Amino acid sequence: MNVASVLTQLRATTPLVHCLTNTVVPQITANVLLAAGAAPAMIDLPEEAGIFAGVASAVLINVGNGSSEQHKAQRTVALAARDAGTPWVLDPVAVGSLPVRTALARELLACSPTAIRGNASEILGLAGTSTGGRGVDATDPVEAAVEVAQELAAEHGTVVAISGQTDVVVSPSRTTRIHGGDPLLPLVIGTGCSLGAVVAAALGATREQPCPHDATVAAHALFAAAGIVAGRDAKGPASFEVVWRDALYALTPDEVAGLAAVEES
Amino acid sequence: MNVASVLTQLRATTPLVHCLTNTVVPQITANVLLAAGAAPAMIDLPEEAGIFAGVASAVLINVGNGSSEQHKAQRTVALAARDAGTPWVLDPVAVGSLPVRTALARELLACSPTAIRGNASEILGLAGTSTGGRGVDATDPVEAAVEVAQELAAEHGTVVAISGQTDVVVSPSRTTRIHGGDPLLPLVIGTGCSLGAVVAAALGATREQPCPHDATVAAHALFAAAGIVAGRDAKGPASFEVVWRDALYALTPDEVAGLAAVEES
Amino acid sequence: MNVASVLTQLRATTPLVHCLTNTVVPQITANVLLAAGAAPAMIDLPEEAGIFAGVASAVLINVGNGSSEQHKAQRTVALAARDAGTPWVLDPVAVGSLPVRTALARELLACSPTAIRGNASEILGLAGTSTGGRGVDATDPVEAAVEVAQELAAEHGTVVAISGQTDVVVSPSRTTRIHGGDPLLPLVIGTGCSLGAVVAAALGATREQPCPHDATVAAHALFAAAGIVAGRDAKGPASFEVVWRDALYALTPDEVAGLAAVEES
Repeated sequence: MNVASVLTQLRATTPLVHCLTNTVVPQITANVLLAAGAAPAMIDLPEEAGIFAGVASAVLINVGNGSSEQHKAQRTVALAARDAGTPWVLDPVAVGSLPVRTALARELLACSPTAIRGNASEILGLAGTSTGGRGVDATDPVEAAVEVAQELAAEHGTVVAISGQTDVVVSPSRTTRIHGGDPLLPLVIGTGCSLGAVVAAALGATREQPCPHDATVAAHALFAAAGIVAGRDAKGPASFEVVWRDALYALTPDEVAGLAAVEES
Repeated sequence: MNVASVLTQLRATTPLVHCLTNTVVPQITANVLLAAGAAPAMIDLPEEAGIFAGVASAVLINVGNGSSEQHKAQRTVALAARDAGTPWVLDPVAVGSLPVRTALARELLACSPTAIRGNASEILGLAGTSTGGRGVDATDPVEAAVEVAQELAAEHGTVVAISGQTDVVVSPSRTTRIHGGDPLLPLVIGTGCSLGAVVAAALGATREQPCPHDATVAAHALFAAAGIVAGRDAKGPASFEVVWRDALYALTPDEVAGLAAVEES
Repeated sequence: MNVASVLTQLRATTPLVHCLTNTVVPQITANVLLAAGAAPAMIDLPEEAGIFAGVASAVLINVGNGSSEQHKAQRTVALAARDAGTPWVLDPVAVGSLPVRTALARELLACSPTAIRGNASEILGLAGTSTGGRGVDATDPVEAAVEVAQELAAEHGTVVAISGQTDVVVSPSRTTRIHGGDPLLPLVIGTGCSLGAVVAAALGATREQPCPHDATVAAHALFAAAGIVAGRDAKGPASFEVVWRDALYALTPDEVAGLAAVEES
């Protein structure tokens, strides 16, 4: 399924994305999901989260800064999503450098995430081959994580997306690079975390004809295209954020496909 | 008290609104309160929240995504607000579809909220006559909840506001419809939750001459008027949010009264 | 070290600022740090936070609305920062008027913060000479807290910054006033809290040649200068916030030094 088809499907179905994410980004994550055509639901209480994972179109579990109560919910939800067949995304924020979330992410990995999205240091950290960068910052280049991502994808039957200047999406049989974005994009907090949520939205929108690799690529293409548009006139990260979020909403699927350069290898 | 008088009073008194709200919206809620002329205070720790409810001009309790510790504080605060005579607003986010918050909201309902604000599915869910929609999304039209809102209002001696394309404010003897807003408004996260906070601000500003129905209508009129202004030039939800929040600050009480169509029935 | 030198150093070193802050402001705090040239990391789990305080360039502990779990982490981190020699900033939000955070802030004060930043009521509340204002709002003028700030600075060997229309930075041997900003600045939530984070960033950037008073002044000058720029065209607090955050990013160190009036006394 090509980029435009996935995004058309996303806007036609308004997938409900259950997010268990870190304390810094719920507002921008929800706003980005709404702009992209999805519906957000943040539910972190263990008693409610497990139920909802079976109702939602897709789930995002982001192990960045969360409480111990939320971590309990994340464990419950990963199991519930797996059992209900709800597609779900694992975002291993700062995994590798911090012990609690590293253990948690590896435990969640056993619940068969449909896709994993992180920066190079986080993907290496999840696989156990790096110390995971400097907190949330990547200290490894994207290409340094591609081989490990291919191994992760093969071992867990999942899609692995590595975010960076050029994004790389890997699954057992394919590797796709997405060019676009803008240097200001990483200066807006939560754009990486929101990307994980939009990957979940794209997976949720295509549940009837599952194509997790294509759905993941389409989410990345949307971000890359909006980044190109926003970079044209921005005077700094705040005006960039406004134009970027507007572009997530206003760009047509065909415009996205025309702007983002998607390279299959 | 008419719309312009309530808003004039709000800006003259800078009511201090104690908010116990969900994890997604504290930032926009605080920004909206500041723009509208109120002062926000988010205090969720049970030991401090109970004390503060007696100090604040008004209280908002929003049962959307919160921790079990915050839920404990919400119980304490509802009782403290009732006992201190502090006006308070209940926002039953996603009540009906999620068990913990549904039980919590019904328990809080027994503490005599001055006003209740939610979408149609949430109002039906609170009353026990719906499954409460799809998470935070309303799946029922506003008018479908008016009768139940009238029953809730009569039974609990409260004002019930139902948010939608046209908002309806109901109290035992009155029903008022407010027209305005914009289709982009629900694509900005937290605008509904912030409306609950501004209802609390309007209640707090008019404590000396209580008129909860009029205060609730005025808060809705402010949101509707700012929505009309913001809809004129917005290119998407982010630019809409900027102009809308500026308009909450810049519109005069008379301009609000002129823009929002308030219909008594 | 003058204002321009500190800011040049900040942008050259991208200091990693570990923030334990309240639930309302993580997003704007992270965005402000990124715009100013620093890297944010919010880590609130006691098991991870203590470790990270020794890795970070600097730490911010803001005792505004936090959970009991986060408070535990704040205690651990203050000790870890002191022991590791990591510079750290204490922000005593609403201290004086709320009992849990007042006790917490006084306990943290014993761990030798490098700098303290608050409004006049909070500084008086921390010192025990005020009831601490109306929640987060200052009810005391800045100048009313200068003497107490000088005593605090002398007793704890720290820098004390008092925020207001004119900011005052006090250390045992110096008092500096920074003029600038805009009346719209306090109508954007989290600008005060973010200032504490940028003070930490400036301290982190200058660890090799510690000059905590100058670093604190430079952070305040950056905020004041961006406030002047943003105040020129703003139509309300939201458009102000966009231009202000852009200016934090775009102003050169020399432009900041030229815009903010720094007065030594």
